[in-house]
Amino acid sequence: MRNPLLVLSLLALSACANQAAKPVAVTPAASSSTNVAQKGMTMGEIIAASKTSEWRTLDPENLLVMQTARGTLVIELANAFAPEHVKNLKALAREGYFDGLAITRSQDNFVVQWGDPNAEDDAKRKPIKTARSTLPSEFEIPISSTSDFTKLPDFDGYAPEVGFSNGFPVGRDPAAGLVWPAHCYGAVGAGRDVAVESGSGAELYAVTGHAPRQLDRNISIVGRIVAGIEVLSVSARGPAPMGFYDKPELRTQITSVKLGSDLPAAERPALEALRTDSASFIAIIEARRNRRDDWYKRPAGYIDLCSVPLPVRALIFAL
Amino acid sequence: MRNPLLVLSLLALSACANQAAKPVAVTPAASSSTNVAQKGMTMGEIIAASKTSEWRTLDPENLLVMQTARGTLVIELANAFAPEHVKNLKALAREGYFDGLAITRSQDNFVVQWGDPNAEDDAKRKPIKTARSTLPSEFEIPISSTSDFTKLPDFDGYAPEVGFSNGFPVGRDPAAGLVWPAHCYGAVGAGRDVAVESGSGAELYAVTGHAPRQLDRNISIVGRIVAGIEVLSVSARGPAPMGFYDKPELRTQITSVKLGSDLPAAERPALEALRTDSASFIAIIEARRNRRDDWYKRPAGYIDLCSVPLPVRALIFAL
Repeated sequence: MRNPLLVLSLLALSACANQAAKPVAVTPAASSSTNVAQKGMTMGEIIAASKTSEWRTLDPENLLVMQTARGTLVIELANAFAPEHVKNLKALAREGYFDGLAITRSQDNFVVQWGDPNAEDDAKRKPIKTARSTLPSEFEIPISSTSDFTKLPDFDGYAPEVGFSNGFPVGRDPAAGLVWPAHCYGAVGAGRDVAVESGSGAELYAVTGHAPRQLDRNISIVGRIVAGIEVLSVSARGPAPMGFYDKPELRTQITSVKLGSDLPAAERPALEALRTDSASFIAIIEARRNRRDDWYKRPAGYIDLCSVPLPVRALIFAL
Repeated sequence: MRNPLLVLSLLALSACANQAAKPVAVTPAASSSTNVAQKGMTMGEIIAASKTSEWRTLDPENLLVMQTARGTLVIELANAFAPEHVKNLKALAREGYFDGLAITRSQDNFVVQWGDPNAEDDAKRKPIKTARSTLPSEFEIPISSTSDFTKLPDFDGYAPEVGFSNGFPVGRDPAAGLVWPAHCYGAVGAGRDVAVESGSGAELYAVTGHAPRQLDRNISIVGRIVAGIEVLSVSARGPAPMGFYDKPELRTQITSVKLGSDLPAAERPALEALRTDSASFIAIIEARRNRRDDWYKRPAGYIDLCSVPLPVRALIFAL
């Protein structure tokens, strides 16, 4: 096993999420078979029957690996949606900007945030060396600059249409020709002040509660957590307003943030995500819109964007 | 201060939730005044201007106080929606059934569950003395048996209409004449096996992630957490499938679960909830559908049921 830590972490984000509330085996529907995307299959069966070609390897060049005093997490960068922020995040990681900084905030049912605890103190602030200190916002991009879109068949109140593009949950406005990543659980954004152009990626947050979709198009999403989110989601909630830690000893130190491709080969995350334009993913959407196992008595016939699971798995090597 | 622990805990569930992601003061809109429910007021301003009569005291007879090795939480029982389960929960609490049991499961972005770790072991299971071991399901009730309903003006994909009744977020089907509590963050339900009538309240779960609305009408909601939810939401995620703790030492012990009214007067939770049929609550819905502070650049013009905050406050006595 190449990355034992990652394999464990993945459980929270992948196929086993959202099962029944009692410790019983959730029995697959009687109609299951080994055909891909057959009606009546559960998500687990669909994943088991998926083809290798339906998965994409997450390029280590597009991953940030964040080590903290309480564990490691991995962020897939949203290069398609926020290229300038992603470029700056890579520069920040490469100059070691995040190393020694901290998780500064955990607000229940909302976000966990990290960065420089002394960001507001001119004397103590950690200087940014090569990266930029502020960037224009990247709230949305032209639809024409994306190549794939899997439309969710269901209504969404926060956008004219929703679905998946470049592996991210997105909202779209076809009339305006715009598309933007949605604030679902695990989304990572670049904190900003009141001014739109005040963010840089030096201060980041991740969604750890019910999807705060009201943030969509108000702040730049720069990635999503693909492994280890529980490092953030179990962070003790901060006692100060908005969940900030008012004492340094409450904070969790960030040991390092590195680009996956800058790590030694054996330490690079080896992760795969199910393609959101694959037949198996489309089958999962339908399996989740209408649960077919014995536990569910009344299938919902609907799914909201942020309830659609985005399966990620670790590649296991017999080294 | 009568309940210092509770006052702290309330922050997570009440007015200060869901603010901007950077540590800046969120400036109120310029049009604010002291009139109740005036257009343009923020939620904080609406609460500050609310009338005493718009708040209801949470009856200690309808609260469960759960003490654990990691803190205390309070559950408001859903007597209007699941009267048989609530009756049974009171019997379980009064016979001391939960005392010495444990938090057995924490699944990231889904639920935390508690009850008897030996529930499946006939030899070791803690016996239920006076309460019932199984109950008929209470998934929904007739609309005619409820007296209040504040309709959310927005579409919901999981129910023909949604809103608030008896202080709970609910879905309704007017054609069928039915109403049911929704699985929003903090909802507490009675775990069950595959059989519909297999739950009793002896095994409970609370929603600690993005609202799993697919559970609506599939399992009986018996209450909601009104204080201390972070005791559950920061529980280390369990390493076994579905977030179960596979080793006893990973579990958090439940010291006691008591009915609020069975506690000595000085220890009873003194909590108030904003009435969901009040003008101030309706103003909060609108303030949250369209954020009016300086930080938000693009108000959503929509809100999903589980994003509407349900303000709870602690009564502070100068003893």
